[in-house]
Amino acid sequence: MINNMEFVEIFDTTLRDGEQVPGCKLDSSTKLTIAKQLDELGVDVLEAGFPISSPGDYKAVENISKLVKNSKVCGLTRAVKRDIDVAADALRFAKRARIHTGIGTSESHIRFKFNSSPEKIIERATAAVAHAKSYVEDVEFYAEDAGRTNNEFLAKICQAVIKAGATVLNIPDTTGYCLPEEYGSKIKYLKENVKGIHNAIISCHCHNDLGLATANSIAGVQNGARQIECTINGIGERAGNTSLEEVVMILRQHPKLNLDTRIKSKQLLYTSQLVSESMAMPVQPNKAIVGANAFAHSSGIHQDGVIKKRETYEIINPRDVGVNESSIVLTARSGRAALAYRAKKIGYELDKLELDRVYEQFLIVADKIKEIGDKDLPDIIKASNL
Amino acid sequence: MINNMEFVEIFDTTLRDGEQVPGCKLDSSTKLTIAKQLDELGVDVLEAGFPISSPGDYKAVENISKLVKNSKVCGLTRAVKRDIDVAADALRFAKRARIHTGIGTSESHIRFKFNSSPEKIIERATAAVAHAKSYVEDVEFYAEDAGRTNNEFLAKICQAVIKAGATVLNIPDTTGYCLPEEYGSKIKYLKENVKGIHNAIISCHCHNDLGLATANSIAGVQNGARQIECTINGIGERAGNTSLEEVVMILRQHPKLNLDTRIKSKQLLYTSQLVSESMAMPVQPNKAIVGANAFAHSSGIHQDGVIKKRETYEIINPRDVGVNESSIVLTARSGRAALAYRAKKIGYELDKLELDRVYEQFLIVADKIKEIGDKDLPDIIKASNL
Repeated sequence: MINNMEFVEIFDTTLRDGEQVPGCKLDSSTKLTIAKQLDELGVDVLEAGFPISSPGDYKAVENISKLVKNSKVCGLTRAVKRDIDVAADALRFAKRARIHTGIGTSESHIRFKFNSSPEKIIERATAAVAHAKSYVEDVEFYAEDAGRTNNEFLAKICQAVIKAGATVLNIPDTTGYCLPEEYGSKIKYLKENVKGIHNAIISCHCHNDLGLATANSIAGVQNGARQIECTINGIGERAGNTSLEEVVMILRQHPKLNLDTRIKSKQLLYTSQLVSESMAMPVQPNKAIVGANAFAHSSGIHQDGVIKKRETYEIINPRDVGVNESSIVLTARSGRAALAYRAKKIGYELDKLELDRVYEQFLIVADKIKEIGDKDLPDIIKASNL
Repeated sequence: MINNMEFVEIFDTTLRDGEQVPGCKLDSSTKLTIAKQLDELGVDVLEAGFPISSPGDYKAVENISKLVKNSKVCGLTRAVKRDIDVAADALRFAKRARIHTGIGTSESHIRFKFNSSPEKIIERATAAVAHAKSYVEDVEFYAEDAGRTNNEFLAKICQAVIKAGATVLNIPDTTGYCLPEEYGSKIKYLKENVKGIHNAIISCHCHNDLGLATANSIAGVQNGARQIECTINGIGERAGNTSLEEVVMILRQHPKLNLDTRIKSKQLLYTSQLVSESMAMPVQPNKAIVGANAFAHSSGIHQDGVIKKRETYEIINPRDVGVNESSIVLTARSGRAALAYRAKKIGYELDKLELDRVYEQFLIVADKIKEIGDKDLPDIIKASNL
C-alpha cells in the first residue's frame, strides 16, 4: 500500500434506503442475517433503519445494535425531536452509535415541502443536531436535495451544523440530477468555503435516476469527500442508490487515486446474492461486478483474447470479488479459439483441420440454439465426421 | 430549442454488441421486430450484426438492410479483407450502409492478441478502411481497447485512418476501465492533436465493468465526441454497454450542455420491454429510466413531497419516457400523506383524526406484509373502528 493512501468510509444503507423499496420489506431475522454479513464485509457504518417510521423498524435497529461487532450502527431521523429520541433509544445497545438527522435544503424542498424559509430551516437543522449530540458523539447531518441546493446556502447550513456538533455532512443528490463535475465541484466548494470543515467528514449520497450515482460518488471523493453512502446491488427507492460493489472496485482498480476502502472484496458476490435473494430483488445479468455475466465472454474476438491472456479483456480478477473464474460461453458469436478451449476441457484435442470442420458444424447448431453446453459438444464433434 | 444546440448521433448496437451475450441469441424474425422498433425510436445508426461471424448473422444483416427506413445500417468486421467483403455484401440492400472495421490498438492487444508491432497495426488499419471505402462512403474505424491505448499512438492511428477515408472514429473503452475525466481527456486530446479530425465524427463506445459507461460517454460528448454507441437496457458482453435510455435522458435533462439526440423518448419504455422480453434478459427493478421501480415512491418522506409537487423528488416526467404515472406504493415506510392519497383514490375521504387511527392499523398490517394494495385498504379502514 502506498504511503499517502487514504481511506474512504463505506456507509451502507441497504437496510434503510435499500429496503425503502416496494416489495423489499424484510422480516426481522433476515434483516439480522444481512446486517451480520455487512459487518463481516467490513462496512464502516451500517444504517439499520428509520426507528420512528414503524414499530418493526424500531425493533430492527435495536436488534442490529446488539448484534453488530465492528461497524458503527446508524439510525435515520427527520429534524424532529421525537424522531431523535426514538432513534437514540433504538440505538442504545450499539457499541458505536450514530444518529443521522437532517432536513431538505433546496428551494423546492423549503418552499413546497416545508412551506418554510431558509433561516427557519437552519434553525431546525442546528436544533436537531444539538439534540442528537446530547445522546451520541457521532452525529451525521443530511442536507436533503443538496444536489439542487444553492452552494452558498448549503455552505451556510453546513457551517452551522458543524458548530452544533455534526461530525459528518451528508450531501445527497436526492433526485439523481447532478452530472459528475457538478457534484464534484459542489463538494470542492464546501471543502473551500465552510469554516470548520476539517472537523467533519463530507459524505456522498447519490441516487441513480440518470445512471450516474457511481460516477458522482467517485467525483465526490476525488474532490475531498471521505464517505460514500451506498447499497448492495445499488438497490433503493426509484432507480436506487450508489452500488457499493462498484465504488469499492473503482477505488481498488485505480490506485492512482490513492483512496481505498476497508471492504473485503472477496465477499462481494456472496453478499450480493444474499441481499438479492432475501429481498427478491433480481440483479440483472449485465450488472457491473456482481451480475451473472460480469465475467462471461461469448464473442469470438473477446474469447480469443481472454484465452491468450485474461487481462486483454478483463480488468478485475474475478477471484477478487468472489467469482471462481471467467467463463467462456459458446454461442454463434464464438470463434475457433473458444471452441478448441472448451473441447479440450472435456477431453477433445482438435488439430487445425479438425477444428475447422467441427467449427462449421458448431455454427449450424449454434445458429439454432442460444448456448452450446458441454453436453452438446460431443454430438457436434461426432456429426463433423472427423 | 436553443440556437446552438448540436445533435449527438445515437449508434445502437443492441443487435450486435448487445446480442453478443450468453443466452441472448435471437431468431431472425425477432431480430427484425427489434430492428423495426429501433428505426421507429429514431436511432441514427443501427448496428445489425457481424456478418462473417455466422451464416445466421449474415442473413440478419441482409434482412435488416432491406427493412430499415431511416437509420443507417451498419455491419461489424475485423481488419480483415474477407470480413469486409462479406459485410459489404450483407449490407448491399441498405438505403444508407456503414461498414465498421477496426483493430486492437493497446499495448496489451498488439502484443498478446496480435503478436504484432504498432507500425504493422497502422498498416492493417488503413488497408481495412481503404478496402471498406471501396464499397461504401461511410466507414467507421474502431481502435479496440482505446481506453488503455497510449494517446499519442491513438492520435497517430486516427490520423492515418481519416486519411484512408474513415468518416467516424470509434474510441472504445473496451474493458470498462476509464474514469470519466480520463475518457473525456482522451477525446479532448484527439480533438486537439489529430490532423483532419474535423472530417470525422468521434464516437464513444464504453463498457460498464465498473459502472461508469454512461458517465464516460457523457464525458466524451462534453469533450467533442458526437456519437454514442449504446444498447437498450445497457445489455452487452460482461457488464454490458452504455444504456441508450440513460444517455438520451441525461442530455435532455441537462439543456445547458446544448446537446440533444433524435430519439423519441416516449418510446423508451416500450423498446426496453420489447428487448428484455425477446432476449429473456431481465431489467432489474432499480434500473435507471426503464426499471419497474424507476418512478415508484414508497417512503413516507418522499411520498409526501411527490404528492405536494412531483418535481420535489422526480426530475424526469414519467410520461416523457413512456411511463403512465409515478406510483405511490404503500409499505411500512409510507406516511399519512400517502395513505390519505391512496384511500381517497378508492373513495375514502379521511379527516385528520380518522387518518391517525387508520394509520396506526395500517402500520400493524404493513409491518407484516410487504405492500398494501387497494384491496387491503377497506379492511384496514374497517378494522380501525372509525
